[in-house]
Amino acid sequence: MVIKMRKELIDRINFLANKKKTVGLTEEELKEQEKLRNEYREEFKKNFISQVSNLRVVHSVEENSINEIKALAIDEIDNANSGHPGIVLGAAPIMYAIFNNELNAYNKDPNWINRDRFVLSSGHASSLLYAFLHVCDYGVTMDDLRNFRKLGSLTPGHPEYKHTLGVDATSGPLGQGIAMAVGMALAEKKLANMFNKDDIKLIDHYTYVMCGDGDLQEGISQEAISMAGNLNLNKLIVLYDSNSVTLDGPLSNSNAENALLRFKAAGFNTMECDDDYNNITACIELAKKSDKPTIIEVKTIIGKGSVNEGTCKVHGSCLDKEDIASLKEKLNVSKEAFNVSDITYNDFASNFIARGKVKYEEWQTLLNEYSKKYPEEYNLFNKALNRELDLNNLENYNCELNAKSATRNVSGKLLNIVTKDNPFIIGGSADVASSVKTSLSHSTHINRDSFEGQTINYGIREFAMGAINNGIALHGGLISFGGTFFVFSDYLKPALRLSSLMGLNNFMLFSHDSVAVGEDGPTHQPIEQLAALRSLPNYTCIRPCNEEETKYAYMYTLNATNPTCIILTRQDLLTLHKSKYEDFAKGAYYVISNDNSEYSIIATGSEVNLAIEVANKLKEDNISVNVISMPMMDVFDKQDEEYRNYILKSGHDRIITLEMLSTYGWGKYGKYNFGIDEFGKSGKASAVIESFGFDTNSMYEKIKNIIK
Amino acid sequence: MVIKMRKELIDRINFLANKKKTVGLTEEELKEQEKLRNEYREEFKKNFISQVSNLRVVHSVEENSINEIKALAIDEIDNANSGHPGIVLGAAPIMYAIFNNELNAYNKDPNWINRDRFVLSSGHASSLLYAFLHVCDYGVTMDDLRNFRKLGSLTPGHPEYKHTLGVDATSGPLGQGIAMAVGMALAEKKLANMFNKDDIKLIDHYTYVMCGDGDLQEGISQEAISMAGNLNLNKLIVLYDSNSVTLDGPLSNSNAENALLRFKAAGFNTMECDDDYNNITACIELAKKSDKPTIIEVKTIIGKGSVNEGTCKVHGSCLDKEDIASLKEKLNVSKEAFNVSDITYNDFASNFIARGKVKYEEWQTLLNEYSKKYPEEYNLFNKALNRELDLNNLENYNCELNAKSATRNVSGKLLNIVTKDNPFIIGGSADVASSVKTSLSHSTHINRDSFEGQTINYGIREFAMGAINNGIALHGGLISFGGTFFVFSDYLKPALRLSSLMGLNNFMLFSHDSVAVGEDGPTHQPIEQLAALRSLPNYTCIRPCNEEETKYAYMYTLNATNPTCIILTRQDLLTLHKSKYEDFAKGAYYVISNDNSEYSIIATGSEVNLAIEVANKLKEDNISVNVISMPMMDVFDKQDEEYRNYILKSGHDRIITLEMLSTYGWGKYGKYNFGIDEFGKSGKASAVIESFGFDTNSMYEKIKNIIK
Repeated sequence: MVIKMRKELIDRINFLANKKKTVGLTEEELKEQEKLRNEYREEFKKNFISQVSNLRVVHSVEENSINEIKALAIDEIDNANSGHPGIVLGAAPIMYAIFNNELNAYNKDPNWINRDRFVLSSGHASSLLYAFLHVCDYGVTMDDLRNFRKLGSLTPGHPEYKHTLGVDATSGPLGQGIAMAVGMALAEKKLANMFNKDDIKLIDHYTYVMCGDGDLQEGISQEAISMAGNLNLNKLIVLYDSNSVTLDGPLSNSNAENALLRFKAAGFNTMECDDDYNNITACIELAKKSDKPTIIEVKTIIGKGSVNEGTCKVHGSCLDKEDIASLKEKLNVSKEAFNVSDITYNDFASNFIARGKVKYEEWQTLLNEYSKKYPEEYNLFNKALNRELDLNNLENYNCELNAKSATRNVSGKLLNIVTKDNPFIIGGSADVASSVKTSLSHSTHINRDSFEGQTINYGIREFAMGAINNGIALHGGLISFGGTFFVFSDYLKPALRLSSLMGLNNFMLFSHDSVAVGEDGPTHQPIEQLAALRSLPNYTCIRPCNEEETKYAYMYTLNATNPTCIILTRQDLLTLHKSKYEDFAKGAYYVISNDNSEYSIIATGSEVNLAIEVANKLKEDNISVNVISMPMMDVFDKQDEEYRNYILKSGHDRIITLEMLSTYGWGKYGKYNFGIDEFGKSGKASAVIESFGFDTNSMYEKIKNIIK
Repeated sequence: MVIKMRKELIDRINFLANKKKTVGLTEEELKEQEKLRNEYREEFKKNFISQVSNLRVVHSVEENSINEIKALAIDEIDNANSGHPGIVLGAAPIMYAIFNNELNAYNKDPNWINRDRFVLSSGHASSLLYAFLHVCDYGVTMDDLRNFRKLGSLTPGHPEYKHTLGVDATSGPLGQGIAMAVGMALAEKKLANMFNKDDIKLIDHYTYVMCGDGDLQEGISQEAISMAGNLNLNKLIVLYDSNSVTLDGPLSNSNAENALLRFKAAGFNTMECDDDYNNITACIELAKKSDKPTIIEVKTIIGKGSVNEGTCKVHGSCLDKEDIASLKEKLNVSKEAFNVSDITYNDFASNFIARGKVKYEEWQTLLNEYSKKYPEEYNLFNKALNRELDLNNLENYNCELNAKSATRNVSGKLLNIVTKDNPFIIGGSADVASSVKTSLSHSTHINRDSFEGQTINYGIREFAMGAINNGIALHGGLISFGGTFFVFSDYLKPALRLSSLMGLNNFMLFSHDSVAVGEDGPTHQPIEQLAALRSLPNYTCIRPCNEEETKYAYMYTLNATNPTCIILTRQDLLTLHKSKYEDFAKGAYYVISNDNSEYSIIATGSEVNLAIEVANKLKEDNISVNVISMPMMDVFDKQDEEYRNYILKSGHDRIITLEMLSTYGWGKYGKYNFGIDEFGKSGKASAVIESFGFDTNSMYEKIKNIIK
């Protein structure tokens, strides 16, 4: 069904719509607008009726758009023979209300900083999102939709940030979308606080997130909404696609929760409505006026219109051909696959696209005015958007030989320097600020009454911290960091994975980095955490060995284009050697190098000094060994072959590695790997270290035996 | 202060207390009891006043016990110079109400199956728990308390299951204690359903958990309480130590949640009270009568009585000497460290200890009666308690050469066999039963109205699934399993860590084990997950390569004494070779072995067939290579040197490894590691596999090049 509408009619309608949004319409023009819209509807119905047989319902333009989009997304799934039809048929009206009626974003500049954000937390609804991005003209072509879920396509199985224009976040791992949206809404408040003036509101937008039952069952959703409630992020609007069905059956099999009451407990404004796009739109309009964050529970029917509607059978299995044919008949859309009428294109052109363009242009005017009135703030604004960092004080930070400090303490000092010099770096810790040294002496903490500070109190919510920080990074204009004990990196690992997959450049501070934690014992002593994070693609773990390497870790982190973590000690470390940043930045470098050394010891963090001490003791026995510090294994592995061979010149059989953590992963460099492949112990740090043979004497004996 | 009470008075009081619980008291005896108790109190006061100067308050016996325990726990911390005084001083009345007034457990048989369970979710209150275990005579001596947090002591930094008698769960990683308690309460319901008769209730106990703000901020608490509400676990009683302070400051800095409303939304009975032990006891009594799970929010004051009471300063820093002295004066307890009066010992002897003994003996009588009346059920009961498994049908399961099946499907069949043969194996999946094949055709699912089934619908709550399964395993009498996609093992990793640390023998089924997931793309394709779990101490990852190895994986898992996971494919695998269980059980074995082969290929799971195919192709070029299947790396690493050398005989330079996951960790065996060290891709499985060079032809070419 291709219905051609009169171009001049549509042009005039669009003209009036735009004018209304910019300079307003006269009484007469308003009447004309109403008249033309009726004409348009009549013409649509006439065309429709003349071309479609067996017509039962005459849909409005809006309903037709929703139905065509449903069909389009179903065609994607059918063509891929893979995907999730249930949510497409249930949630299309929600996404229509958001995209066509509410969302302010500009398809020609998808990264516009003041656009409304939309996170599809239910990432398995990707085909639906791609259908919307298609009609919203984000560069997703009909061919791209035909290539849905095919290798190398613009339309992968779950939405991927940086891959498809218009996708604000990679989603799929459930629950994280909500938390990322909370991060975006927080970023909006923070940037508004930094840059808005009484007369010019540079940052002023909403964050929408669509989620389902799966997202809300995940614990991270509770952590995130609790934070949103505490900070009263009233520009966050959660659209809950409430279809009462999960993959395994009725929701009631696993859930008896009163979702809205739970959100109320967290401080949300709560609403409920049916799946009529008009009602959803009305709810969103109300939500925008709320002084609290809002959840709108939209009661939908999974797979609506398909044979198995309302059941889990339609969640993740393709509809069969017959089902699709009957569905399309019910929807009154073309039987042909991948067919969208001009009516629908026009619907989006005259609403989402036109509205976005107007808003964008208005904002450009504002920005121009801002640049003239507030040149200093404008300058900072650009720096923030372009991540132009002032690292002079960091780079000039002086490190003396023989200085003694826990690297967490050094980190605390450096963090204070870089956050003071760069007010768009924000973050904090999961309630361990005093231990991980993330307190900022120059800044207050962000709270519901003021977003002035740079410190975020994430509470004891590690996972949300990770995902919220991803949301802040996705928003743009801010650099986010978090902090907790290294052993609890496990709690936020799924968020670190997403930051790596999205290629965000935020960072984590993990202190208490070995059994040297001491008294708190095995539950608090990391063993396998570094192996877990080193094996994560596109993620850089930095374990500095002294004050200077900690400084270099900050320099590396703030210049990186991927996410990083800095792994810090609780215990004091001496600065036993000085090094150059360019060596550090290669991931590994010689601390002690002798032409006549047959053996090399590679160590990281607190074990580098141990290696130096052992080497010094061996020297007394006239045994010369090389010592290599390897603060960043993944970075070293990416160096050219020549450099790698230079560092590994002793050969696999003569390389000894020292790291007071799991040895897993070290065997690639050397045959002799000293580490801890069991759980830690509660006791005084020095006693625990000694019990694992990581004191100088024990290690000296062991290494001496190897060399002999 | 050592107050000696008249022995005959105390003996008579205890005699009456015991008699009351067993055969009941006459009217006269009741009066005598009342009279003696008053005498006791008077005597106590008199003694007290005569020995303590500067007396301001005369405490009751109960208050005195609480105060002495507070002082004792503070002494532990002071002596260790490490610990958490805040919770000791705030939460002691809660633990007193539980231990002395409510908990039915027997100190001489701490693993008694029908005891009430107590989980200290706020594991940092360990010193307090140890103080209670001391006065409850669980074998924690005064010397053990003096060794608090010292290397090798019975009293480590956080409570450790299997280490200290009376500790029902290892805790410390916040939030998990609540979820473990939910698992225990679920286990109680399930065992009651299996074994209780109208006339004999063999399993009938409560599960108590004390938690704090940190536990409730963690997302897993929401997952867990939501499940508890859905299953209406009315014998679960949560004591919320609500002190409105976290490590970093006032709770309001990070939280504005209405905790009780949130629990109400999850279907809980909610109560609130002050920190008077009488009121707490009264609330618990009410909770026991509730037809819903209960939370009692106890408003406490962190560090009550210390200089910094009510502030975060007292959370994790030791009190100074002066503070301790003034505190002890306020508490009216001895100034001496590690001093407990006989009054307190007697208080616990005549309450917790006496009550537990009576309850225990009553239950033994019941059990004896049960064994006679219901010999068949009694037999099964013993099998369940002793983990005596019937694995005949599993062991006789027939595997044919050239059979073709996805290992997830084989797993589904085997799971049905073993759960049918062993009704005390229970579990399910995090809403992916149809994908991970955890549905049990012979069983219904557990729900609030019936605990008859063996299937648990965890909902989309991976982390709670892991921790609840730990709780089930901790309870005893049941073996728990869970299931989800391998990539989402990240979500429950912290629970797997605790199961490993506690040495539980439950298991996980992880399907969709590589990029062969296909269309769902990188968010759903595991890469680093196996490295993350292999590096976890005391945890065994099993990645079977065909139907037979999957059967062996089950045999291994059900005989293991540590937690395991079985990692399963979505795609079909052919059975290209047969093997023996005794070889499989060594972790690695030769599939193809030739004396004249210089090179060996080690592979796991779906890549074993690839290795066989490559070896067969190389044979056509007259190149002979060994092929080794390594389903369990950690088990192989624990074999004796001879066996390890035999498997690795080709030497590091001539060993090639194949695993379609991160290569991290493989370098220890061989120089040439083929894997995937980047994120996956969305596309047809075969196309994705080929794009990573894991098709037979590409791999053949690459390996041929190495050998040449």
